[in-house]
Amino acid sequence: MRIALVAPSCPLKREAAERVSALAAARGDCELLIHPQCFLTDGHFAGSDSERLEAVREVMANPAVDAVWFARGGYGSNRIAAAAVRDLPVEARSKEFLGYSDAGFMLAALHRAGCQVAHGPMAQDVLRVGGEAAITRALDWLVRDDPSSLEPGLSRPSMAFNLTVLSCLLGTAVEPSFTGRDILIEEVDEEHYRIDRMMFHVTSSQTVRSCGGIRLGRCAVPENDRPFGAEEEAIVRDWCGRSGIPYLGRADIGHDADNKVVPFPVAGR
Amino acid sequence: MRIALVAPSCPLKREAAERVSALAAARGDCELLIHPQCFLTDGHFAGSDSERLEAVREVMANPAVDAVWFARGGYGSNRIAAAAVRDLPVEARSKEFLGYSDAGFMLAALHRAGCQVAHGPMAQDVLRVGGEAAITRALDWLVRDDPSSLEPGLSRPSMAFNLTVLSCLLGTAVEPSFTGRDILIEEVDEEHYRIDRMMFHVTSSQTVRSCGGIRLGRCAVPENDRPFGAEEEAIVRDWCGRSGIPYLGRADIGHDADNKVVPFPVAGR
Repeated sequence: MRIALVAPSCPLKREAAERVSALAAARGDCELLIHPQCFLTDGHFAGSDSERLEAVREVMANPAVDAVWFARGGYGSNRIAAAAVRDLPVEARSKEFLGYSDAGFMLAALHRAGCQVAHGPMAQDVLRVGGEAAITRALDWLVRDDPSSLEPGLSRPSMAFNLTVLSCLLGTAVEPSFTGRDILIEEVDEEHYRIDRMMFHVTSSQTVRSCGGIRLGRCAVPENDRPFGAEEEAIVRDWCGRSGIPYLGRADIGHDADNKVVPFPVAGR
Repeated sequence: MRIALVAPSCPLKREAAERVSALAAARGDCELLIHPQCFLTDGHFAGSDSERLEAVREVMANPAVDAVWFARGGYGSNRIAAAAVRDLPVEARSKEFLGYSDAGFMLAALHRAGCQVAHGPMAQDVLRVGGEAAITRALDWLVRDDPSSLEPGLSRPSMAFNLTVLSCLLGTAVEPSFTGRDILIEEVDEEHYRIDRMMFHVTSSQTVRSCGGIRLGRCAVPENDRPFGAEEEAIVRDWCGRSGIPYLGRADIGHDADNKVVPFPVAGR
């Protein structure tokens, strides 16, 4: 099993690359091909738009690669996501793609293009407390579709996104169809008032309103200068109620080492 | 000239209320009716949704009120904006409404409903350095349509929004028509990568793409943990270029005491 790592957003830390490589080597069931692009830096990004795009396109088209693992989030994959799936290389359809957070823009674009994508841990997560478990969960999924890697409530077709990413992809060229799917959301570093504002935006969308329901993952919420007056679950429940979207409870995803895998249904199948 | 103040988002500070009242009294050409709702507190907000909505509806319908001045932004007017213009009281059509920042959700909803709205200083701005000039500019506009209050580049039909507010109102019930209008944007407390992400979102919108062009007001940008690699004007110019929206240069608006007035065209006229 050959797993290529590319960084469509921000650069991968060398230490993270070394630790995931050691974990993969110890398993003996997969080989990590860490693209040198992962370590480029151009301002905020892991290389320029064209460098990141070229690396993504290269591993997508490489028949020797079985899966593409996004190395890290941050910000920036939205700048190349639509271009990445233009004239999709046929080799991309037989691969699985894994990532979350900012990589959600890539998941959305690849899903639209008919690829197999899953929301789950990335290589940089090895640096979290308990991060080795996240890496093991990701590799167990990529190498052998291990059901123990999965978010435990996936009885219906589901997709997962960071809430900010979901809000910012609505109305863009990479917005997927949500019809009949549960949408799992999670958030990090956004105050309750921002979560409320994004829930207003997201649940106002007619396309989001066609979903099967919303489930709420973990939110790491910074303190604001004033208390908001409601916790994140009450906020999400409120906007679901206002918009007629079923609120389906909590989900085991988030910006942490416990983040479970959520495979999207394959579009058109 | 009777000007009613209500707070659809966060509460007005007592000190700000006293100082704007003194400025208005010294002018002698207007009377400020500061609704007691401005000082309510309910979590993040200036009273509950129903308290804020009721106050807004009351001053809109009051025939003795000539203009409605939003007291302050913050967050929360999106929660009541659509309801505020439902079955619009006929008296609302003869009033002018003034505000900016989070009050942009109100401006958008009122504009859609056919009211006269303008983007410009609010009462709480008196607490800024140089804030008295902002209050004078706002009152000069509300009392006597003083052209010296206006943003100096309004040769074409224009609208103005905080970028975050604009991003979050797309696809909602309060989204106005941008067709043929210049959109002036400004931002505060959002890092360059967030401005970039919102510009991706906003310029991807087919409705925004029907606008006449985008002009960039001031952005008060906090430092991020890494340099983005481009300043806000380069970011806005880049996304305008990618989306085919004309970039029309800078605008004299922002979260500061120099914020000039931008009256929206009246919808349907």
